[in-house]
Amino acid sequence: MPVPVPNLYPPFNIVRLSHIELVVTDLAKSRAFYVDTLGLQVTHEGNREIHLRALEERGHHCIVLCLGDTPRAGHLGFKVYDEGDLDRAEAFFGAKGLPTEWVERPFQSRTLRTCDVQGVPLELYCRMERLPPIHQQYALYKGVKPLRIDHFNCFSPDVDESVAFYNEIGFRVTEYTEDDVSKRLWAAWTHRKGGVHDIAFTNGRGPRLHHVAFWVPHPIAIIDLLDLMATTGYVGNIERGPGRHGISNAFFLYVRDPDGHRIEIYCSDYQTVDPDLEPIKWDLKDPQRQTLWGAPAPRSWFEEGSLFDGVTPKAPILEAQPIVAP
Amino acid sequence: MPVPVPNLYPPFNIVRLSHIELVVTDLAKSRAFYVDTLGLQVTHEGNREIHLRALEERGHHCIVLCLGDTPRAGHLGFKVYDEGDLDRAEAFFGAKGLPTEWVERPFQSRTLRTCDVQGVPLELYCRMERLPPIHQQYALYKGVKPLRIDHFNCFSPDVDESVAFYNEIGFRVTEYTEDDVSKRLWAAWTHRKGGVHDIAFTNGRGPRLHHVAFWVPHPIAIIDLLDLMATTGYVGNIERGPGRHGISNAFFLYVRDPDGHRIEIYCSDYQTVDPDLEPIKWDLKDPQRQTLWGAPAPRSWFEEGSLFDGVTPKAPILEAQPIVAP
Amino acid sequence: MPVPVPNLYPPFNIVRLSHIELVVTDLAKSRAFYVDTLGLQVTHEGNREIHLRALEERGHHCIVLCLGDTPRAGHLGFKVYDEGDLDRAEAFFGAKGLPTEWVERPFQSRTLRTCDVQGVPLELYCRMERLPPIHQQYALYKGVKPLRIDHFNCFSPDVDESVAFYNEIGFRVTEYTEDDVSKRLWAAWTHRKGGVHDIAFTNGRGPRLHHVAFWVPHPIAIIDLLDLMATTGYVGNIERGPGRHGISNAFFLYVRDPDGHRIEIYCSDYQTVDPDLEPIKWDLKDPQRQTLWGAPAPRSWFEEGSLFDGVTPKAPILEAQPIVAP
Amino acid sequence: MPVPVPNLYPPFNIVRLSHIELVVTDLAKSRAFYVDTLGLQVTHEGNREIHLRALEERGHHCIVLCLGDTPRAGHLGFKVYDEGDLDRAEAFFGAKGLPTEWVERPFQSRTLRTCDVQGVPLELYCRMERLPPIHQQYALYKGVKPLRIDHFNCFSPDVDESVAFYNEIGFRVTEYTEDDVSKRLWAAWTHRKGGVHDIAFTNGRGPRLHHVAFWVPHPIAIIDLLDLMATTGYVGNIERGPGRHGISNAFFLYVRDPDGHRIEIYCSDYQTVDPDLEPIKWDLKDPQRQTLWGAPAPRSWFEEGSLFDGVTPKAPILEAQPIVAP
Repeated sequence: MPVPVPNLYPPFNIVRLSHIELVVTDLAKSRAFYVDTLGLQVTHEGNREIHLRALEERGHHCIVLCLGDTPRAGHLGFKVYDEGDLDRAEAFFGAKGLPTEWVERPFQSRTLRTCDVQGVPLELYCRMERLPPIHQQYALYKGVKPLRIDHFNCFSPDVDESVAFYNEIGFRVTEYTEDDVSKRLWAAWTHRKGGVHDIAFTNGRGPRLHHVAFWVPHPIAIIDLLDLMATTGYVGNIERGPGRHGISNAFFLYVRDPDGHRIEIYCSDYQTVDPDLEPIKWDLKDPQRQTLWGAPAPRSWFEEGSLFDGVTPKAPILEAQPIVAP
Repeated sequence: MPVPVPNLYPPFNIVRLSHIELVVTDLAKSRAFYVDTLGLQVTHEGNREIHLRALEERGHHCIVLCLGDTPRAGHLGFKVYDEGDLDRAEAFFGAKGLPTEWVERPFQSRTLRTCDVQGVPLELYCRMERLPPIHQQYALYKGVKPLRIDHFNCFSPDVDESVAFYNEIGFRVTEYTEDDVSKRLWAAWTHRKGGVHDIAFTNGRGPRLHHVAFWVPHPIAIIDLLDLMATTGYVGNIERGPGRHGISNAFFLYVRDPDGHRIEIYCSDYQTVDPDLEPIKWDLKDPQRQTLWGAPAPRSWFEEGSLFDGVTPKAPILEAQPIVAP
Repeated sequence: MPVPVPNLYPPFNIVRLSHIELVVTDLAKSRAFYVDTLGLQVTHEGNREIHLRALEERGHHCIVLCLGDTPRAGHLGFKVYDEGDLDRAEAFFGAKGLPTEWVERPFQSRTLRTCDVQGVPLELYCRMERLPPIHQQYALYKGVKPLRIDHFNCFSPDVDESVAFYNEIGFRVTEYTEDDVSKRLWAAWTHRKGGVHDIAFTNGRGPRLHHVAFWVPHPIAIIDLLDLMATTGYVGNIERGPGRHGISNAFFLYVRDPDGHRIEIYCSDYQTVDPDLEPIKWDLKDPQRQTLWGAPAPRSWFEEGSLFDGVTPKAPILEAQPIVAP
Repeated sequence: MPVPVPNLYPPFNIVRLSHIELVVTDLAKSRAFYVDTLGLQVTHEGNREIHLRALEERGHHCIVLCLGDTPRAGHLGFKVYDEGDLDRAEAFFGAKGLPTEWVERPFQSRTLRTCDVQGVPLELYCRMERLPPIHQQYALYKGVKPLRIDHFNCFSPDVDESVAFYNEIGFRVTEYTEDDVSKRLWAAWTHRKGGVHDIAFTNGRGPRLHHVAFWVPHPIAIIDLLDLMATTGYVGNIERGPGRHGISNAFFLYVRDPDGHRIEIYCSDYQTVDPDLEPIKWDLKDPQRQTLWGAPAPRSWFEEGSLFDGVTPKAPILEAQPIVAP
């Protein structure tokens, strides 16, 4: 397979990933995790949902926690540049035979609900309620000091197909792994906003959400979170890390929320705004692509993910990669 | 004056600031400063010039040091999205009555030389020689571990005029200060690439270069540079900091190179990709806009800057702001 | 004057500095500062006093805040090795003609009240109520994350006399500054516990308390405190820093409490347990001894200090050092 | 078994651990590791040995690398308070029936060679050649910026016996683990210099050296070392971490030198100078005692260690603890 090629003149302009809806089974437990432990800020709280933002965000929400019977990922939210982009997006998705629907979402202007080529539920909007800046109210900084939502990561049963779809709508691959034998993509990281990714895909039964990530200021904030979680009853929720990814070069930590949704805490990746930035190819057999320092990820990290609400996952095209043993 | 309004559909697409040319009087001294002390990487070295890049950059250069008789700032370099943008830029600058010229620059494709409304020399190009990634060659990390060029800051004799010009070509103001009496802009920070600024302007005799800034990973890298400079003969080159700016929220340090050119070391500002990001207005009388922690800047920081080669500065429209006393 | 020589076989064994009593005029304001802002832990709270400890301490208190009409330093507390040391101390101070008295102090075993050669009130004890460890209850870490009391610093009108006295009781000088002309000590740092100092002395009208210092884990904690104080109404309480001292090599910050008592936040000095550790001599004309990075201290830092309760300060033997201008 | 009780009035005064002799099989490879990678400073270099010191040390050496045919730990070095302590030590060890010998060691005054109750070779001295301070020559700081040697850790076949011996000569236990069934000590940390340990013992075939540790300024230095080792051919030498120990509360990393000797990089433990400091007891079944954050250590970490030159290890009294599975 050739190097993935982005469409530098996409049919509509997605600015960045914006937010995620997570279905959770106990709002109080989720609040204790996301607010009291991670340090996200409540911007609206109802009986059945909580809206949260991170500390440098001025949009109303980057996570919507919705009460439900079963843990699920809801939709992935993206912000477009102007209202015309929404209409162009509707036309694009419709022409692909993908479902489109205009939905009402609190705190957002008109919102287009659709899905990607693998069925991942997507919601696109142009304007969200803007809130006053709080990034210099340092008394609010707690937990891991989350600054902004950074990216989504999904299992895809056909990464080539996923990447081709997102390339077409302007996402640019920054790093990727290829299966040596089949020459198919094993995993790829694609962005719009100028970091290593807004959304990444890994081969696996899917579509499923692997994780959503938050940007923090520096590794010390991640060490602080580890100390806090380890001594407040969350030691079992620490899944992997801290470490540095080979891919993306980010310093990372993976934790699980009370429903098992996986959250990455992330810092230190690099700027990717150049349209001619060359994607970095990694060898699937190189364990340093996952952890530069060599420590393997646990089995759960490779296998577990959140189902998308109403979406049945399919078996992946490529067989599961053997997990590198410790 | 109303809040500065960016042109969301500019006549051509500047991706980001790219590089600066600095005229220096002793290449060996400059090399000792930029390479051995700050930690920039040499990508080309001739008898009369040195090209440097920072550690996560793949373009050939972010600084060109040119030997000359008198310390001067040469031109400010910007990267455009595609070749058509260069032609559209030529037409735009020409229509403004500003000089345009196609120049040859080593390691760059065709380059448009022009200037802004105050006479600041600008050079625009689309493609620069790309180099292999070195951001994971950690043995190269020295000094302050500079990751990328971040922004330019210039004295302008008429900040309103400068900002209106850059607004027209798509730069968006993120933060600004207004003179209470005249309602004229005192200073403004404008960006293209999604950070707080690619270029900022402060009222003062100009145009002159106030500083060029480099992005580093975290405040500890800045503390390391202070320790290094303080004990290797550069203590007199430390001008201001470390501190946190109110404006931009960045953790900063200002140092002077052997010719007096001012370099900012910078980290921790915030993402600004939303086209509807509201500019933050600061009160000119609020000393925390300069240093959130209250410490005043020294007089030199307010008064000194590098002349642009061949450009005669003019007196500013607004009288000099009284320096806040310690 | 020769290099100060410690008595390696002192008449009694002081283990370390232990605590300070500060007279404050508004307990609520002091609590907001020491507990809510700095992050010290309340261990006892009465109508007229609050006892505090830092996060790794198991002794009951490192600060006792006492309500009073006028801000004053009370006494400096030291812990001795065993009960016999208290009796030997009583004999020693008595033989010097210094007042001694056995006093009752809550949470302490029998306590010897006396004073040093300049009249600084001292209290020595052997056993203090021990509390359970909290250093791994990371949910308690707030503010600057103070780990332990580190040292006292006092103005002395005769530093030679002060140092000779503390040398005699086993304090060892680690660094010092001498006046070139008179060959008298300008300032000296002396320790018992194996860091750069338990108590230091600077020439000046005295005795007065210059500051009491707390040890924190790393410079990031100090940056966090600056951000917090700057945005919660305490920007005027930030006096000096952050910076690195030449003397002691510590990364420091000086803040003032609501009554003007000076608190140093301190990390990164070095181990001094070797009995043959050579004191480091600094030139009084070297501004880097104060701030390695060159920034001068403000005038208040040189001139202001807390009076000791009931002690009238005397003029210093050496004339005031000219303050190094910015 | 009761809580281990130190002898507060030991027969002679050991100030601190001082240095270690390591037999290595390739001096060039060892130099590349200890000097170019870890950042230790060469103080003497011969054909068959290299002496190293860390950055804040003024004694001549903390490691002596000696060329030999087989990787071995040589002796553990300790510094005593005065020359009389050496004579008192000779009498003490002799009375125990342990071998004593006066040996000549370069850069040290007369040196007493002996061994502990398990046969660990020990060398005690009072004075070592003192070198000028380099802790403020920041251009020398490389690698992990090692500041000082911190502690030794040994496998002991009978931890109760080892601890009783070191208690008798004044080492105080700070933390320990007990086997629930036999009530024997599983592991214990003992100190002289006021940190969590100068030497620790873990149940296992022994005596063998588990590791020697170096103190670094903050966790960022450890992250820097990981990045450096991972990209300069040493990824296979990273054994465990980074993480926080429950016991000692230290932030740690374990790496292996080219001969397999284990080196710990260590920061953030706490001050222990109080003679009445209560030892902390940990449950052998609590995995957080090893890693507060829950990640298990690899099998090699539990099983492998360096033999002491000329000492045959014995089987441990307690059976091997089941390794906690990932």
